[in-house]
Amino acid sequence: MADPRFFRRAGPISLQKIAEIAGGALHHAKNPELQIADVSPLDRAGPDDISFLDNKRYSDQYRRSAAGACIVEPTFAAQAPADMALIVTPTPYLAFARVAQAFYPEAAARPGCHASAVVDASARIGEGSEIGAHVVVGAGAEIGAGCRIEPGVVVGEGVHIGDGTHIGANASLSHCDVGACCAIHPGVRIGTRGFGFAMDPGGHVDVPQLGTVVIEDFVEIGANSTIDRGAGPDTVIGYGTKIDNLVQIGHNVRTGKGCVLVGQSGVAGSTVLEDFVVVAAQAGVAGHLTLGRGAQIAAASGVMRDVAPGEKVAGAPAMPVREFFRLVALWQRQLRKKDVKK
Amino acid sequence: MADPRFFRRAGPISLQKIAEIAGGALHHAKNPELQIADVSPLDRAGPDDISFLDNKRYSDQYRRSAAGACIVEPTFAAQAPADMALIVTPTPYLAFARVAQAFYPEAAARPGCHASAVVDASARIGEGSEIGAHVVVGAGAEIGAGCRIEPGVVVGEGVHIGDGTHIGANASLSHCDVGACCAIHPGVRIGTRGFGFAMDPGGHVDVPQLGTVVIEDFVEIGANSTIDRGAGPDTVIGYGTKIDNLVQIGHNVRTGKGCVLVGQSGVAGSTVLEDFVVVAAQAGVAGHLTLGRGAQIAAASGVMRDVAPGEKVAGAPAMPVREFFRLVALWQRQLRKKDVKK
Amino acid sequence: MADPRFFRRAGPISLQKIAEIAGGALHHAKNPELQIADVSPLDRAGPDDISFLDNKRYSDQYRRSAAGACIVEPTFAAQAPADMALIVTPTPYLAFARVAQAFYPEAAARPGCHASAVVDASARIGEGSEIGAHVVVGAGAEIGAGCRIEPGVVVGEGVHIGDGTHIGANASLSHCDVGACCAIHPGVRIGTRGFGFAMDPGGHVDVPQLGTVVIEDFVEIGANSTIDRGAGPDTVIGYGTKIDNLVQIGHNVRTGKGCVLVGQSGVAGSTVLEDFVVVAAQAGVAGHLTLGRGAQIAAASGVMRDVAPGEKVAGAPAMPVREFFRLVALWQRQLRKKDVKK
Repeated sequence: MADPRFFRRAGPISLQKIAEIAGGALHHAKNPELQIADVSPLDRAGPDDISFLDNKRYSDQYRRSAAGACIVEPTFAAQAPADMALIVTPTPYLAFARVAQAFYPEAAARPGCHASAVVDASARIGEGSEIGAHVVVGAGAEIGAGCRIEPGVVVGEGVHIGDGTHIGANASLSHCDVGACCAIHPGVRIGTRGFGFAMDPGGHVDVPQLGTVVIEDFVEIGANSTIDRGAGPDTVIGYGTKIDNLVQIGHNVRTGKGCVLVGQSGVAGSTVLEDFVVVAAQAGVAGHLTLGRGAQIAAASGVMRDVAPGEKVAGAPAMPVREFFRLVALWQRQLRKKDVKK
Repeated sequence: MADPRFFRRAGPISLQKIAEIAGGALHHAKNPELQIADVSPLDRAGPDDISFLDNKRYSDQYRRSAAGACIVEPTFAAQAPADMALIVTPTPYLAFARVAQAFYPEAAARPGCHASAVVDASARIGEGSEIGAHVVVGAGAEIGAGCRIEPGVVVGEGVHIGDGTHIGANASLSHCDVGACCAIHPGVRIGTRGFGFAMDPGGHVDVPQLGTVVIEDFVEIGANSTIDRGAGPDTVIGYGTKIDNLVQIGHNVRTGKGCVLVGQSGVAGSTVLEDFVVVAAQAGVAGHLTLGRGAQIAAASGVMRDVAPGEKVAGAPAMPVREFFRLVALWQRQLRKKDVKK
Repeated sequence: MADPRFFRRAGPISLQKIAEIAGGALHHAKNPELQIADVSPLDRAGPDDISFLDNKRYSDQYRRSAAGACIVEPTFAAQAPADMALIVTPTPYLAFARVAQAFYPEAAARPGCHASAVVDASARIGEGSEIGAHVVVGAGAEIGAGCRIEPGVVVGEGVHIGDGTHIGANASLSHCDVGACCAIHPGVRIGTRGFGFAMDPGGHVDVPQLGTVVIEDFVEIGANSTIDRGAGPDTVIGYGTKIDNLVQIGHNVRTGKGCVLVGQSGVAGSTVLEDFVVVAAQAGVAGHLTLGRGAQIAAASGVMRDVAPGEKVAGAPAMPVREFFRLVALWQRQLRKKDVKK
């Protein structure tokens, strides 16, 4: 089970109830009222635990598992151990996510403002929000209801934060509006000056960056990531977008709904990501481009052109992913041919 | 106009005065005393606004713009709409930067030291400086006049900061001297231990890093970037150098005047950048190299050798940029040839 | 000598004593009781200083150096200037590291808890630890003896920190156990939520991340690096591992003893690094892989497969390093051939 120093477990929860939460069908359940105590991986689960199988690499573990219940796809139902109850669904990982959230709900805000926090008299804090030690909230800022603002966070003047949003330790926000139910992790920087200046041998001259950052609802931003404010238009992070750690988002970038940006990737200024674009780890996207809906950018690639909706690209400069792997195969053949000649 | 929660606009400013600020020639102005209220992009500007044209991609917008005035190159002057006054200059973006700064000057320091700041009795703070909430200033540190030190900043023992410098929220500085008129953005780490140790299977042994970081005047350092102190010699960031977000500068690195390092790039220990070198996004430069004056390193490239003054390189390992693009074209031909064979 | 604002020098130390610290043999020493005052590079050292030669590039400097003593390999002993005492060892850099530490020991903790720190009543702080200004220590946290916790650090609920560990300014730790004698640099984020969610067009669903981070003894973590907690198993950073700045470690990653991860590198979830693996700057390692003992990953490479013990790889996708350099040579020949044809 999860370390009780850090995690509070709810439950137990009956199989019947878990099936409802999972949105799956209960099979092989001798007793639908059986109480399940915890979630656990297949190889460590016992009769009080529920586990899941999402990757056939682990099907051996599944067939030998002592888990009391397991969430699986229909095709694996027949291989279950004799005493295992099943929750059958075409999307077991998604179902498991919901079940695990039921056992381990997010820590709720502990309402109140720590005595060491410095909150400007003109700022407004919504009901039930927790303002941690040494937090600073600037003039005119508004924080919604039920927010958790961890210690050391700096909320700049005029910033708005929606209900139920969680800001991690030592993050700082300026020139921005953050939606509801967002998770902004420790050390994130939002609203910083875009990298805009006119180059001049006598000294580069800053162009005032007069836009803001708009973070829509249900966005997650990983630790120490940075999101610059717009130069004139705003920088926008769309509804439900997931950003990992150490990601850089330049000024005027707009992401659509449900985009995913993995660790250490970066998007340069004014580029548009339509809905559900995935940018994998350490990939870079140049400025002033459009990545179409559902485009997928492989890890470590460097994108220098628009990417069509649904297109998958890899390499630097990025090309269609099949072409990239054919190119890699070609290199390998060329190297072997050279061996033969020697 | 810019969001008044975050930006204070100066003005209005007469066309005549704007032309002086821009260093351009006023053309087609029926009334040089016309008062301009704001800067605005071409497609949103009205008769009270001034805009600029720097990229011919936007020349259609320019020909249709309702802007009262526009900053343009001489070649575009003839295409202006009938009622538009012009400020003509060979460098419209630079001119616009100066004009925009006149309308939106940097926020001035609000003199005083917040009651929650912890400033050592032996530290000195210059006249008119603003020391934010929860700032910590160590023994013997000296902060110049007219500085803005945002909340949560930690200024280590003995650190010196020049006049008019702005340090963003939750940044930390140690073992360094920072010049005048610098902008150090939120979360920046300056003066951290260089990555120096003697490898040993019994346990790597740290080599004390006994140098400092010297940041010259008018330097900008982007959010969450890191600059290690020297191992013995100092790490030096030259006058007017611009560093973007999440950039890593290793120990003993020296940059010249006016260098530009774009987001997520990195320079390894003891490498020298002469004046006006540009390192584009996500590029990496190995240690103990010299990049000559005006060298340009393309995005995502990996530099493993010296680069001559003015040379432009791309790729990993980096090669002359034309060679890199010829190589990419060669790959494309090889892939096509293989298609034919199939 | 090192800037006295930032560094406190111990000593002087006799040659005899230095030889003991270095673990080397004293040669050419007219007076073993000669007092040495400082460490210094060859080209700046005087008769009171000790220097070292580790790289034959600097052998000219060595032959002309005025250093009173020098740490060298046996093969260089004969070339020493007439008045130079020698400490002879097969590992001069390692020996120098130990000597330099004797002259410049790490600053000791100044016991006590700053009045502005917020330490929960249920937290425990070991003897002789220094808790800086505006530090926050959560409920149930335990900090060992002789630790230095710099200003602005946030230690989350239940976190344990071992004896003699140093945490840099504005770092934050949650869901973790940190060993003894570690150096966690400014802005580091430990224990943040892993990037785990089930993708769903209706809104990605977070998978609770129920593991912790375990940092073993003598680990160093560079400025602004991020280490996510495990999803179920823990993320583990092994004994004596050295991590540079802006490095990203995903959930469930395990490193062995003495690994080295250079600046801006990243390791994706569930990958295992056996002992003494080196991941060079800006390299990326995909998830669910194993890098065998002593494997070396070149800078900027992208690893998409397991790497055998002792194997050296480069390129993206990574291949054996010799193959990579043969490939680069092949490209160069192909480009030249094309020139000829023109």
